[in-house]
Amino acid sequence: MEERLETLDPEDWQAYAREVHATLDRAIALTASLGHDPVWRPVPAEIRAGFESGVPREPSSLADVLDETWATVLSYPLGNRHPRYWMWYMGASCLTGALGDFLAAVDGSNLGGGNDAAVEVERQVLRWLKEIIGFPPDAGGTLTSGGTVANLIGLTVARNRMAQGNIRENGLSSLKQPLRYYASDQVHACHQKAIELLGLGNRALRRVPTRADCRMQTAALRAAIAEDRAAGYSPACVIATAGTVNTGAIDNLRELAGICREEGLWFHVDGCIGALARLSESHRGLLDGIELADSVALDPHKMMHVPFEAGCVLVRDAAAQLQSFSLGSEYLESMQRGVSAGGWLFDYGIQTSRGFRALKIWLMLKEHGANRFGRIITRNIDQARRIADRIDAEPRLHLLWPVTLDIVCFRFDPGGLETAALTALNIEIMIRLQESGIAAFSDTTVHGEHGLRIAICNHRTTDEDLASALDAVLELGERLCKERSVSEPAK
Amino acid sequence: MEERLETLDPEDWQAYAREVHATLDRAIALTASLGHDPVWRPVPAEIRAGFESGVPREPSSLADVLDETWATVLSYPLGNRHPRYWMWYMGASCLTGALGDFLAAVDGSNLGGGNDAAVEVERQVLRWLKEIIGFPPDAGGTLTSGGTVANLIGLTVARNRMAQGNIRENGLSSLKQPLRYYASDQVHACHQKAIELLGLGNRALRRVPTRADCRMQTAALRAAIAEDRAAGYSPACVIATAGTVNTGAIDNLRELAGICREEGLWFHVDGCIGALARLSESHRGLLDGIELADSVALDPHKMMHVPFEAGCVLVRDAAAQLQSFSLGSEYLESMQRGVSAGGWLFDYGIQTSRGFRALKIWLMLKEHGANRFGRIITRNIDQARRIADRIDAEPRLHLLWPVTLDIVCFRFDPGGLETAALTALNIEIMIRLQESGIAAFSDTTVHGEHGLRIAICNHRTTDEDLASALDAVLELGERLCKERSVSEPAK
Ligand SMILES: Cc1ncc(COP(=O)(O)O)c(C=O)c1O
Ligand SMILES: Cc1ncc(COP(=O)(O)O)c(C=O)c1O
Repeated sequence: MEERLETLDPEDWQAYAREVHATLDRAIALTASLGHDPVWRPVPAEIRAGFESGVPREPSSLADVLDETWATVLSYPLGNRHPRYWMWYMGASCLTGALGDFLAAVDGSNLGGGNDAAVEVERQVLRWLKEIIGFPPDAGGTLTSGGTVANLIGLTVARNRMAQGNIRENGLSSLKQPLRYYASDQVHACHQKAIELLGLGNRALRRVPTRADCRMQTAALRAAIAEDRAAGYSPACVIATAGTVNTGAIDNLRELAGICREEGLWFHVDGCIGALARLSESHRGLLDGIELADSVALDPHKMMHVPFEAGCVLVRDAAAQLQSFSLGSEYLESMQRGVSAGGWLFDYGIQTSRGFRALKIWLMLKEHGANRFGRIITRNIDQARRIADRIDAEPRLHLLWPVTLDIVCFRFDPGGLETAALTALNIEIMIRLQESGIAAFSDTTVHGEHGLRIAICNHRTTDEDLASALDAVLELGERLCKERSVSEPAK
Repeated sequence: MEERLETLDPEDWQAYAREVHATLDRAIALTASLGHDPVWRPVPAEIRAGFESGVPREPSSLADVLDETWATVLSYPLGNRHPRYWMWYMGASCLTGALGDFLAAVDGSNLGGGNDAAVEVERQVLRWLKEIIGFPPDAGGTLTSGGTVANLIGLTVARNRMAQGNIRENGLSSLKQPLRYYASDQVHACHQKAIELLGLGNRALRRVPTRADCRMQTAALRAAIAEDRAAGYSPACVIATAGTVNTGAIDNLRELAGICREEGLWFHVDGCIGALARLSESHRGLLDGIELADSVALDPHKMMHVPFEAGCVLVRDAAAQLQSFSLGSEYLESMQRGVSAGGWLFDYGIQTSRGFRALKIWLMLKEHGANRFGRIITRNIDQARRIADRIDAEPRLHLLWPVTLDIVCFRFDPGGLETAALTALNIEIMIRLQESGIAAFSDTTVHGEHGLRIAICNHRTTDEDLASALDAVLELGERLCKERSVSEPAK
């Protein structure tokens, strides 16, 4: 009798299949019932304590492990798949995307490269994203873990292209004139991480002031560039934001493209929040000029609700992208035939081994079609505008910033409170709504003004969800004022 | 009647469930039959052409999309889940890991941080990995997209910690003494990418020659450090390799740790290939000294067969890691209560949004127990040693380098061929075995010697698989010599 090899495959395939089918049914039932459960609830202390145990040494049955997973893990999620979750800025996931991640792992392929269909799927998805953004099909690009790495890659190509001499070989200490990057004061923190990682230093990223509508002041940008040139710096790159994380503002992309052309600077667009609004028939005009960028970061795991992780960077000049990342390695020489004849996708970015994240995007676009994504994005943006109108009409609510995309910032203001008390009150409203499971917003401070922030990016949100959340803000705000519970700040 | 909202959820949940169950059965059947199919086959031209179509605008039924996926994508994988796939160095994936990716996406949580169970799972998995490597439980660490980013994070912390002054704020151009890193000439190419990305320049990474067994010459390292100090450089970091990609050699970790201590250098270990051999009862001694590192990169998507992507970096001094990556952002202030009270995992690395890759590692370790992984790793290493013995005993096979882990380099050598012809012959053998679907190896060149390379890292590989692959090499090699098909190089 053949002795069974001890592997990571199941010993009893049928029993295994039963467990996995049962878990699949639970996952489907859970997804179908979203919105009936609270948007969030804290992890109970006894469950939290269970995560303290050391490395499991011996096996457990899959049934037990899955039971534990449902009871302790899947019952206490962050909440972003829920129709009334509008914190930070992220997608709400979906089952076909989850299936895509499953099938990617079943397929097992390493998207570092190779001569297989997975590589073709990634290339096709990249062409689709170029088509959506208005980039030429032969532009460079790569899928990434998210917008942060997408931006990092864009900023790296900018650095290597704009620096004098062979920066890859010699490093930045060989540079006579330090490089300078420019972004608005609303730029996402990941650019600071990127600029620090790249060795340029945070001070190489100049924050250009924004106007009252949170868009970059272009006159101030021109002045900053001139000032830097005069001081012996080498202006290298303008980072435009197409959808700021605080308010969803979109810099004037066409004007910034013009300034970059005149000044000979690299034009990078951080479109993590807004770029995919190009899918919206009625709102795509907001992104006018994005097609002129040298590089664009975008994030299918946001407006397209692809499960984490799915980011993308597009680089107009594919050769420049390769010149930043490609390396030759003796054990990876390309062949004309066989498994390694497919080319190397890792030559376009930072990772070596790469997951098959293209598959979930491919499946979702095939199943739903780009137009459905467009309609959902349109709806979220229109919802934001309607909510802003209602806020404008409510005497106790104060709209803080103009609404461009699907982000609304506002505060509850009963009048007569000092700034600190007002902030504490709004934070308390936010936290109580989270704790009660009614709705999840975040808060933010822009130009010194604190407020609550609803980022609607959610394919499951109804108008009713939003209306009832605003009702709850009003009700709670009034109750808290009466209770005077605002005397102790929440933080 | 309530009008149905257009979302990315299915319209007909039952029909949807049927399709997904059917696909699950196909995935299970496929996995159960691995080894009966060829290890690899090329994507047919007509299927390749199908990937040229533009963005799908309208929806398709999930059934059609999945049929297409099976026919065009999942039938032509890279092959690494197959028992006779031993190219490059990667895991063979497994169903429970795939299920983990599915459930992670169903859960939807963003592991950037938050007050949810997913964050606790990641923290637990990190503690487990610290326990396995021999790091203290309060060390820093983060899960990454793979070993490349894990190494990049380690090298970044080293740079920021070792540089004089505030490198994050001021950049590298403020440095008086350029930093120097040291690694063996067998160092993985991702370190060059990292050092270039960091702005240090490739020439800041000194390649120290290796001995005949491919381990770093420590006397040459000492000399290089002394030489650099004398020339005004600032030696910063030694990168030891625990498992080189070419031959699996492991640098003398304990000795290198001592040198780093004496010289005041950061000690980083690239353990992407070898670190998890700490799980092997009989071979863990090979990693002696890894527990002395300042930072270690390791790769559960290699020896643990976690589906892509799953890498990890551990940093002994958690504060140093935070000091390299943490940023304050006004819209992300931490609260004492509510959804954002859980702390920020993104403060430990590069990404902002982060997927729940911890879940698959957690599930796999719970289901199988660490000891099973240890036995499989032991078996792969022992298989490599037995194969090496057989190669030594076969007059027409020539073992190229000592075997340390699960990598064997050898060549078919009938005698009397010039170097170029011998290389061409071995490449032709490799490609024919791939094309015939019998077995997938890669090739490499080390210290000027070209050879075939079997990296056994595969939980499904039997002794019989390896023996028959070697038989095939011998048979094919002899046939090719007779045919004289070697006169035209394959490349
Ligand atoms: C404007 C902007 N850019 C970049 C990012 C980073 O994207 P990711 O979280 O996918 O890394 C974000 C994240 O919210 C963002 O809002
Ligand atoms: C020694 C070594 N280090 C680092 C890496 C990079 O790891 P990853 O492919 O997970 O990014 C590899 C990949 O094979 C490797 O062999």
